[in-house]
Amino acid sequence: MNQADKPRVHISAQFNAELEGVRNDLMTMGGLVESQIEHAIEAALDGDSARAENAIELDLEVNELERSIDEQCTRILVLRQPAAGDLRLVLATIKVTNDLERIGDEAVKISRQAIELSEGGALESASARVRELAVSVNSLLKDSLDSFARLQVNEAATIILRDDDIDEAYTAAKTWLTSEIQAHPETLEASLAYLGILKSLERVADHAVNIAEQVIFLTRGVDVRHLDTLVVRDLVS
Amino acid sequence: MNQADKPRVHISAQFNAELEGVRNDLMTMGGLVESQIEHAIEAALDGDSARAENAIELDLEVNELERSIDEQCTRILVLRQPAAGDLRLVLATIKVTNDLERIGDEAVKISRQAIELSEGGALESASARVRELAVSVNSLLKDSLDSFARLQVNEAATIILRDDDIDEAYTAAKTWLTSEIQAHPETLEASLAYLGILKSLERVADHAVNIAEQVIFLTRGVDVRHLDTLVVRDLVS
Repeated sequence: MNQADKPRVHISAQFNAELEGVRNDLMTMGGLVESQIEHAIEAALDGDSARAENAIELDLEVNELERSIDEQCTRILVLRQPAAGDLRLVLATIKVTNDLERIGDEAVKISRQAIELSEGGALESASARVRELAVSVNSLLKDSLDSFARLQVNEAATIILRDDDIDEAYTAAKTWLTSEIQAHPETLEASLAYLGILKSLERVADHAVNIAEQVIFLTRGVDVRHLDTLVVRDLVS
Repeated sequence: MNQADKPRVHISAQFNAELEGVRNDLMTMGGLVESQIEHAIEAALDGDSARAENAIELDLEVNELERSIDEQCTRILVLRQPAAGDLRLVLATIKVTNDLERIGDEAVKISRQAIELSEGGALESASARVRELAVSVNSLLKDSLDSFARLQVNEAATIILRDDDIDEAYTAAKTWLTSEIQAHPETLEASLAYLGILKSLERVADHAVNIAEQVIFLTRGVDVRHLDTLVVRDLVS
């Protein structure tokens, strides 16, 4: 290596370290919101208000990470002026951070409903419906974060398609709960809390889809938002 | 002017035109989602399903604008590598676009509830509550877009504070509707539709707050997300 190359290699190594740093923070944030959602759901299903408080407290950390990742991305854009691939990665990171923060917000909402339910009124049959949807949504969220970490376009496309099933399950659960309210108006408040939890879970799934769309944008350069699922289907090998 | 300056002036004029172009598109998108929300709410209050369909159709245009603005911003970042102020403007534009698109999604949700209500079941007293909240939320959204267009930090800070009143009005309306359901279980489905509309309006207000936060970020360089309202209060002169 001649002398002239040295500073360049040095800057590039530093730049790579910065990208790696922001990536690590994003993965930490992903892990945090995953456990936030898990705590919130378990709190709602077990009537464990301490666990719900825990999920709400985690949100401070999630918000702090959002702010820090945003700052790091802006810094990289200003100082490194990254080109094509790196630029796309930084832009995708900003968007995914935003989705993770909103998933954190849904975890807080679920936790608040959980605290309400813990004060009496939990309904066994509604809990079972929530648990069913929560299992699917949690695995969708986990897989979307994995597909982002590994930039797997195939897995990302599958997530977008799996969301259709979640929408269907959500609609079915909502219809069932509505008829439950008609049959048992005396448990209205608890039923509304479960309705809110279902709605939050459906939104978490939407955010997981947004994350998957960024994976496709990063790997294929295609913006698949709002496109027909046929286009997405073509990406699944 | 000497010859050497010419290309630079030319590039800078072209760059300014690009920034102006993306700004115009963002304002067009803002106007579109504003009228989408207006159509959706009027549809819900008048039982006018044609107007609701209209709001749903507008969403195609909104989504297309989101894609186009995102592309323009990425192009500017790649080709112009903008510095401090311009970079912040481009990043804020990407975020505001995302909020506008989500407001469009809420308009679609309200429209779907409006279509349901138009098939019978509209409730006069619930309509009045929705209208009240809709008036506040519409004016918050309009003011947030104005504050962004004119980069008025004072107005932006006021929007963040006004959202507290909207949250309060939302909670009061929700509590009232819940007791209505208990008193009149026979109109449950309509009441749930109104609850959904109120929820969507509250989310539109949250997005308006996000837009206002970007105005403060742009003018003061301060990231006020998740901060105490005292910090925001300091910005109001």
